[in-house]
Amino acid sequence: MAEVASAAAVKDGLRRLAAGVTLVTAAADGDRRGLTATAVCSVTVEPPRILACVNHKSSTLPLALSSRAFAVNVLDRSQEDLAKLFAGMTGVADDQRFTQGDWIVDATGAPVLADAQASFDCALVETIEQSTHMILIGEVRSCRASGAPTAPLLYVDGAFGGVC
Amino acid sequence: MAEVASAAAVKDGLRRLAAGVTLVTAAADGDRRGLTATAVCSVTVEPPRILACVNHKSSTLPLALSSRAFAVNVLDRSQEDLAKLFAGMTGVADDQRFTQGDWIVDATGAPVLADAQASFDCALVETIEQSTHMILIGEVRSCRASGAPTAPLLYVDGAFGGVC
Repeated sequence: MAEVASAAAVKDGLRRLAAGVTLVTAAADGDRRGLTATAVCSVTVEPPRILACVNHKSSTLPLALSSRAFAVNVLDRSQEDLAKLFAGMTGVADDQRFTQGDWIVDATGAPVLADAQASFDCALVETIEQSTHMILIGEVRSCRASGAPTAPLLYVDGAFGGVC
Repeated sequence: MAEVASAAAVKDGLRRLAAGVTLVTAAADGDRRGLTATAVCSVTVEPPRILACVNHKSSTLPLALSSRAFAVNVLDRSQEDLAKLFAGMTGVADDQRFTQGDWIVDATGAPVLADAQASFDCALVETIEQSTHMILIGEVRSCRASGAPTAPLLYVDGAFGGVC
């Protein structure tokens, strides 16, 4: 079983793994960066840890590594514009992305989206190298939630959607 | 920032992180085990790797560790019964769970659900200890997809749902 599955087959399979859409953000030296991410999940509740898989090419990664902190902001269905903005689909880059949305600072200094469905403000406690990506393990220092009922933004099959 | 967020706040936040529902399965010595899991995500495409966070109490874990393999089966919205079965909500345990669903063996020997939206049959290539949980990193040996259009089963806010 040494042969790996083809990248095309795996990409097709991954399109079918639905996920909530988040913005992973970090700040250092007065600069902020963020990316749209779906490769995020819970690790443990006690201690409260979550993880995010981030590409080495992402400009957010160096800021998370130097500040030893990052935030995961879970988007609401009404925040598809923010998802596209932070996915680079509108051509807006770097700190300019933060002119849209109500961004605050909480426990770690990482940018926290005030009206996210949920935000996890994390100390970066562990990193795991995985070739093109790095897995960031964050210990949650502050967790905020807003809005009811829960209406998360989803990404599946190459498109945004909601829950029903 | 040494203080962690309260478990209650983090649990409330995690309820808002929508996720596709999967069955993580493993087989060893003629025995099979599986659990319902949402803490699953893509890691890298080349090589094709995904991860799953599994509680140390899970009976699936020893089989994944001894066989060095596991499968992630992405459920269709019509497969909520399987999600409940493998979540232990019906009281059916161990190998008996596999009497429901069309289970086959593909590349690694781990149980693969033939009509899953997608299945990732993985060699276990790395494990990362995280107190109550272990992160399993799987390299995808075979990836299957079935059904169109994509209609994944979701879990959010303590309930199952679909995409719209």
